Amino acid sequence: MNVRVGVIGVGMIGQDHIRRITQVLTGGSVTAVNDVDAARAGQVAAVLPGASVHATAQGLIADGNVDAVLVASWGPAHEEQVLAAIGAGKPVFCEKPLAPASDACLRIMDAEMAAGRRLVQVGFMRRYDAGYRAMKAALDGASSEGDGLGAPLLMHCAHRNPSVPDYGFTTDMIISDSAVHEMDLVRWLFGEEIVAASVLTPRRAGQAPDGLQDPLILLLEMAGGALVDDELFVSARYGYDVRGEVVCETGTVALADVSEVTVRAQNRYGGRVPVDWRDRFIRAYDAELQEWLNAVAAGGAAVTDAALEALRTGQRTAVSMPERPEFYAK
Amino acid sequence: MNVRVGVIGVGMIGQDHIRRITQVLTGGSVTAVNDVDAARAGQVAAVLPGASVHATAQGLIADGNVDAVLVASWGPAHEEQVLAAIGAGKPVFCEKPLAPASDACLRIMDAEMAAGRRLVQVGFMRRYDAGYRAMKAALDGASSEGDGLGAPLLMHCAHRNPSVPDYGFTTDMIISDSAVHEMDLVRWLFGEEIVAASVLTPRRAGQAPDGLQDPLILLLEMAGGALVDDELFVSARYGYDVRGEVVCETGTVALADVSEVTVRAQNRYGGRVPVDWRDRFIRAYDAELQEWLNAVAAGGAAVTDAALEALRTGQRTAVSMPERPEFYAK
Amino acid sequence: MNVRVGVIGVGMIGQDHIRRITQVLTGGSVTAVNDVDAARAGQVAAVLPGASVHATAQGLIADGNVDAVLVASWGPAHEEQVLAAIGAGKPVFCEKPLAPASDACLRIMDAEMAAGRRLVQVGFMRRYDAGYRAMKAALDGASSEGDGLGAPLLMHCAHRNPSVPDYGFTTDMIISDSAVHEMDLVRWLFGEEIVAASVLTPRRAGQAPDGLQDPLILLLEMAGGALVDDELFVSARYGYDVRGEVVCETGTVALADVSEVTVRAQNRYGGRVPVDWRDRFIRAYDAELQEWLNAVAAGGAAVTDAALEALRTGQRTAVSMPERPEFYAK
Amino acid sequence: MNVRVGVIGVGMIGQDHIRRITQVLTGGSVTAVNDVDAARAGQVAAVLPGASVHATAQGLIADGNVDAVLVASWGPAHEEQVLAAIGAGKPVFCEKPLAPASDACLRIMDAEMAAGRRLVQVGFMRRYDAGYRAMKAALDGASSEGDGLGAPLLMHCAHRNPSVPDYGFTTDMIISDSAVHEMDLVRWLFGEEIVAASVLTPRRAGQAPDGLQDPLILLLEMAGGALVDDELFVSARYGYDVRGEVVCETGTVALADVSEVTVRAQNRYGGRVPVDWRDRFIRAYDAELQEWLNAVAAGGAAVTDAALEALRTGQRTAVSMPERPEFYAK
Repeated sequence: MNVRVGVIGVGMIGQDHIRRITQVLTGGSVTAVNDVDAARAGQVAAVLPGASVHATAQGLIADGNVDAVLVASWGPAHEEQVLAAIGAGKPVFCEKPLAPASDACLRIMDAEMAAGRRLVQVGFMRRYDAGYRAMKAALDGASSEGDGLGAPLLMHCAHRNPSVPDYGFTTDMIISDSAVHEMDLVRWLFGEEIVAASVLTPRRAGQAPDGLQDPLILLLEMAGGALVDDELFVSARYGYDVRGEVVCETGTVALADVSEVTVRAQNRYGGRVPVDWRDRFIRAYDAELQEWLNAVAAGGAAVTDAALEALRTGQRTAVSMPERPEFYAK
Repeated sequence: MNVRVGVIGVGMIGQDHIRRITQVLTGGSVTAVNDVDAARAGQVAAVLPGASVHATAQGLIADGNVDAVLVASWGPAHEEQVLAAIGAGKPVFCEKPLAPASDACLRIMDAEMAAGRRLVQVGFMRRYDAGYRAMKAALDGASSEGDGLGAPLLMHCAHRNPSVPDYGFTTDMIISDSAVHEMDLVRWLFGEEIVAASVLTPRRAGQAPDGLQDPLILLLEMAGGALVDDELFVSARYGYDVRGEVVCETGTVALADVSEVTVRAQNRYGGRVPVDWRDRFIRAYDAELQEWLNAVAAGGAAVTDAALEALRTGQRTAVSMPERPEFYAK
Repeated sequence: MNVRVGVIGVGMIGQDHIRRITQVLTGGSVTAVNDVDAARAGQVAAVLPGASVHATAQGLIADGNVDAVLVASWGPAHEEQVLAAIGAGKPVFCEKPLAPASDACLRIMDAEMAAGRRLVQVGFMRRYDAGYRAMKAALDGASSEGDGLGAPLLMHCAHRNPSVPDYGFTTDMIISDSAVHEMDLVRWLFGEEIVAASVLTPRRAGQAPDGLQDPLILLLEMAGGALVDDELFVSARYGYDVRGEVVCETGTVALADVSEVTVRAQNRYGGRVPVDWRDRFIRAYDAELQEWLNAVAAGGAAVTDAALEALRTGQRTAVSMPERPEFYAK
Repeated sequence: MNVRVGVIGVGMIGQDHIRRITQVLTGGSVTAVNDVDAARAGQVAAVLPGASVHATAQGLIADGNVDAVLVASWGPAHEEQVLAAIGAGKPVFCEKPLAPASDACLRIMDAEMAAGRRLVQVGFMRRYDAGYRAMKAALDGASSEGDGLGAPLLMHCAHRNPSVPDYGFTTDMIISDSAVHEMDLVRWLFGEEIVAASVLTPRRAGQAPDGLQDPLILLLEMAGGALVDDELFVSARYGYDVRGEVVCETGTVALADVSEVTVRAQNRYGGRVPVDWRDRFIRAYDAELQEWLNAVAAGGAAVTDAALEALRTGQRTAVSMPERPEFYAK
């Protein structure tokens, strides 16, 4: 069966998803597009045989040739678009964040429950990354790798970006745009919720854009007591480097480097570090979108609130997580 | 456009290609199957909506619902089936070997030239492996990895299989089934032909099946003078391990290990070695079949002959490569 | 010139230093020993030609055949013995800790200043480890490794011991016996003092001895703003594993694994993790003792106090570091 | 006991050994020096308290203040000097090669047997390298690393030098100066003799000095059937890189990289490659000379002859190894 997808927002990530659906994955096609920039929407549709352009997101969602909706617009627009798709009873794949704050997320969850169907999947591609999957299999004892590691006690993460735009990127966004990936990831890896967050502010990198406190260390406390420390460094220059090590009772499991080859030259041996998120996670994006129809619960926004509060106050801040309704129990 | 594929031979590899075409890749469907075991063909077709079962390979090739043919039968049947597909003017993807000896391969090449179209692609998936692709990009100066490595002088290869069947697998097959991959690979990597081959016979592994000289070292001489040594060890027990390092004038480039995670436990750190070829090369098979319609020249069999001769005589044996017709110039 | 060393305390570490002086290093000999266990002292002296046994530490220190004193007794005895050596004007190499609390350390520093000579070196062998030395050279721009890394912003440490005795080892000792090494190390690596410490208590390992909160995370704030997180895990079972990565503005430098060989077997590749501190740091001990006569400032105890206070109160605790007298300026 | 050493030849390597004996190791002193360049001998002796300068090697060997002789002169002078030391009944440490050809080596062995004592040790420092020692321990089942690897079947070696002098260094010297290390090593690692050698000549590196065939591949056949391939590349530019992997029946063991730290910068991660033999093997030299008094059998020259013959003729050449007299049985 072919899923006819309508895409809202055809900027860089939206266009990348269109390429993926039409050239890489099986079982989907793009039948409608919409963008705040109508000209851009028209250009993108021009090379998609049979795709229609909609002036509004609402129009696209209502289109009878659209079975499912992919939301790749900017964050503040997500709530309205996702709620409309739920109202139309159509599955939605929404790029992260689901919404910039937790009250909006709760409204979406309420709507989903009222609809009585799981319709929304948030684009956390790391759950589909081969490295994190192998890590989870080891933790779950589902691979020989993790034989007898015991319970997880700690996780060390690092999330390094070469750079962010010189203006417009705020310290808050290090939490809400970058750390949100680890927040989603640790809930999935550990199979439990985050109950508190703290933020530490190390010495600031000289090359960080004016006004940006970069790097940060985010500390997350899991419901079962495990601690996560997450180094967030978005002006790290040297590459896009995502690392993680889970420390269990009798062993650890860590992401390996991803270079395909090792070069020996000029008195060095070694491999390459990815240049950006696309380079690092392209396969995860492929796998994620391919599995879209296997729904995944939305999450992470309540923790974002707590971490932002911790950043403002300098205090450890408990996460007040709305009780997970039976509906979302996995 | 959807390519309707007919599959000849639905054993392990044939079924794996069917899964790939129907569940992983885009742009193809399986519309017909044939197998020497008619019952097996029927079972496989039963779960392929709309697929027909043919009693003969010839019937499948002639089927108007078959745009292209995938040959995954056993080696001795390949020549007849591939020639029939060429005769019908249909593209063929043929699992290696194209044919067990070079005269059969030459007949296929003659037929292709007579047809005036490149129709045959042999299943050498390594050219599609991310590791070898990064290696080639480095050698070609097409990536920053290889900046200034200079000309390639040598290549060290190892090709280790955990095991082969206790009977039926001969020493010759170490060349024709295993080393054939390196033979194809080095022609592609170095962009030149192999001109001579020698085989060395080290101490035999105690666990090798009776009558099998395992491991072997195959030496290949490239037209430009570069030497390739290839350790072939098909009873290596510990895993499926394919390695390679090209030594250039001022640096080297080698395949990296492919483990996704590093585990620290029981006084060891390290990663996993793949268990079999599927585990190691699944993505390469995906990429290869997806690119099938971009034709690739057949090759490798003349070198197989020389290496088998070298194995028999213990002498270095020149490769008598039929001149590459203009038709096959890349 | 031959340095005649008197050794106080001939348990495991004392005997190891004696082996080092007599069989590995150049320029020293052991001429006197003392131990609370007189029989043990006698046995050790029996195989040291010409060495005398002293009933008391004081007697050994006064011995005219002793040029310098090595203190390897238990911690609570250190202050008295080190002060006596200072009183006698003899150089002392004192195994860590210099003394269990900072007031005792201050008394020793006072005595040294009164004597007007730097006489005391504390046994922090990590400063002599090839890995940490290469790290420091990179940070200092003294090697090509660190070319242009920029200022250090963060350090991630892990300090994992396979086990501690089932009784007698307290949570405080994780700070005062284990973390004290990182405290010394970061002061040396960063060339600045520690100004605050915090302790976090993750989920406890099930195999930790009764009453022991293990692992801990110690957070140290350096005077220049850099943050250090130090995972301390003394029941880690899988090996003795000491790791560290300094994150600088435009790159990072980390300790490499120390295995001499890589083994490929049973579907794994990898190397060994050291079994204990001797296995990991034997060369550092050799280098340290060889360089003993190049004095090194004592330190670390004030930070230990703050970290122990942080452990008790759960609060970040400022380090009240006595001003470093001109005398100790490096 | 203090060994009084007389050093013949005080060029770079001779001076390095003098530094080692006087500043690093225990139990030795340098009491006499000799060099064909008398002025250089005088300069070196000037900073060695109590050392005498001898006009001839014979005079040094006869000196009553010399207990043992270290020969670091050039190869052609070795035979006469070593025979003189044997004649004087004094132990000799002779830098490799023992002598440039096997007949000279045999005369030395004859002299040693006539003397009835093992007096000669050749400076093959690799046997003292921590990496090769761990490899041998694994092969011998003497460490947990090698548990159940089975018998060794193959060894892959690479021996890469950044450069050699532009003139004076011949292709023969790649065998007699460089490969001689692997020849000694494999005899020690496998515990058996080399029975044949072949040399292959790959494509020549453009930067190799005029007239030098560089790189070479040397193939060695061990008495038990194991094969060794040794890539010798003395103009490799990128560093001094010595590598080795022994392939056993059910696993392999390889030298690990030796970098102390891993650096992540400029889109790369990795470590350093040593710059020269001193950088790579300094600890092995230390260990070797410290263990000098534990005699090691001379060897390797008969194999050098065969390999040089193979290089000249292009044929596999059997090694005609004089039967190892009972005297040299280990």
